[in-house]
Amino acid sequence: MTGAATPTDDNARHAAKMARRKEAKDRALDGKTADKGLLIVHTGAGKGKSSAGFGMILRCIAHGMPCAVVQFVKGAWDTGERRLLTERFADLCQFHAMGEGFTWDTQDRARDIAAAERGWHKAQALIRDPEIRMVLLDEINIALRYGYLDSGEVIAFLRDEKPPLTHVVLTGRNAPEALIEAADLVTEMTLVRHPFRAGIKAQPGVEF
Amino acid sequence: MTGAATPTDDNARHAAKMARRKEAKDRALDGKTADKGLLIVHTGAGKGKSSAGFGMILRCIAHGMPCAVVQFVKGAWDTGERRLLTERFADLCQFHAMGEGFTWDTQDRARDIAAAERGWHKAQALIRDPEIRMVLLDEINIALRYGYLDSGEVIAFLRDEKPPLTHVVLTGRNAPEALIEAADLVTEMTLVRHPFRAGIKAQPGVEF
Repeated sequence: MTGAATPTDDNARHAAKMARRKEAKDRALDGKTADKGLLIVHTGAGKGKSSAGFGMILRCIAHGMPCAVVQFVKGAWDTGERRLLTERFADLCQFHAMGEGFTWDTQDRARDIAAAERGWHKAQALIRDPEIRMVLLDEINIALRYGYLDSGEVIAFLRDEKPPLTHVVLTGRNAPEALIEAADLVTEMTLVRHPFRAGIKAQPGVEF
Repeated sequence: MTGAATPTDDNARHAAKMARRKEAKDRALDGKTADKGLLIVHTGAGKGKSSAGFGMILRCIAHGMPCAVVQFVKGAWDTGERRLLTERFADLCQFHAMGEGFTWDTQDRARDIAAAERGWHKAQALIRDPEIRMVLLDEINIALRYGYLDSGEVIAFLRDEKPPLTHVVLTGRNAPEALIEAADLVTEMTLVRHPFRAGIKAQPGVEF
């Protein structure tokens, strides 16, 4: 073992390295004390945009924070998220599935626009209510992408009318650049590997 | 209006375009009928890796599918996910917080390794139980990254001993390349903008 590091050396080096890392983390946290309602965007072609939104909604529920979901694509489908929120947590979380299905299923632009506008109208009322601490606008980015809703109007509303402590989470691929600029926290979910390629269908629990 | 598209033209073009898209989507779904337990990885420096895992766990609960969580970093902290799962869903979801905190907080490699090994031992038992349909290994990628667990052993176990219908979700940044290769579904969460930069602290509901 001559010349080789002993386990004791390893442990000491590890402790020193982690002590430096802790100092850096603590420095980074200094002065970060503001409570603020965040504008959060989940976009990209990968999975997990809506799942992460629902994960945050369920954290809010766990903390007793009133919250709400507006779905812009999913309609009357029996999804897990719908069932759980409406059957178990209706006291804390409003759930509104305002979609008519994927736009390639409806093939009716006027109907899609009307559905998006109904969803946005509902969303505005929920966001304006200062009792509601988080509003998830699931797949709204699809409606913005196709021009069913005006991005400028949506962003201006969020900037001017969102109460300061309310979090708003907007999901869906192709988030407009102006929305990304306006947001506090943006995650792009990137697809690295997808099981559809291997002939696997959408699975309950994973996809819906 | 001569030469300009009328709304009727717009609608017809939209319907035709969406009909083509639906054909493509339906083709893509053809033959995708296999039920399969998936190996799912959420990695990258962005937010939402654990949130998306918890979103999937809650979908499982909604579908009545037994499931389990092992947390490799978080320990006794009072997180929203812990509170919700242990107080409301203990009948369907086992919850095991096996961590000792971030490795830069403990500064003790031997203790971190022991905690990771305890977590992995628990995870193996949960994964082997075919009644459990999804197991979330939250932040296990951190333990793999630091070499607290052997990636080769973990991957071999998942390949050889995971029941065919069980989903396993592994989260944390810096997932090993071999794990990404072995997985069915991999999402990289990429940081586009983070509120810590703007002096905002971690928020209940969003971060924990």
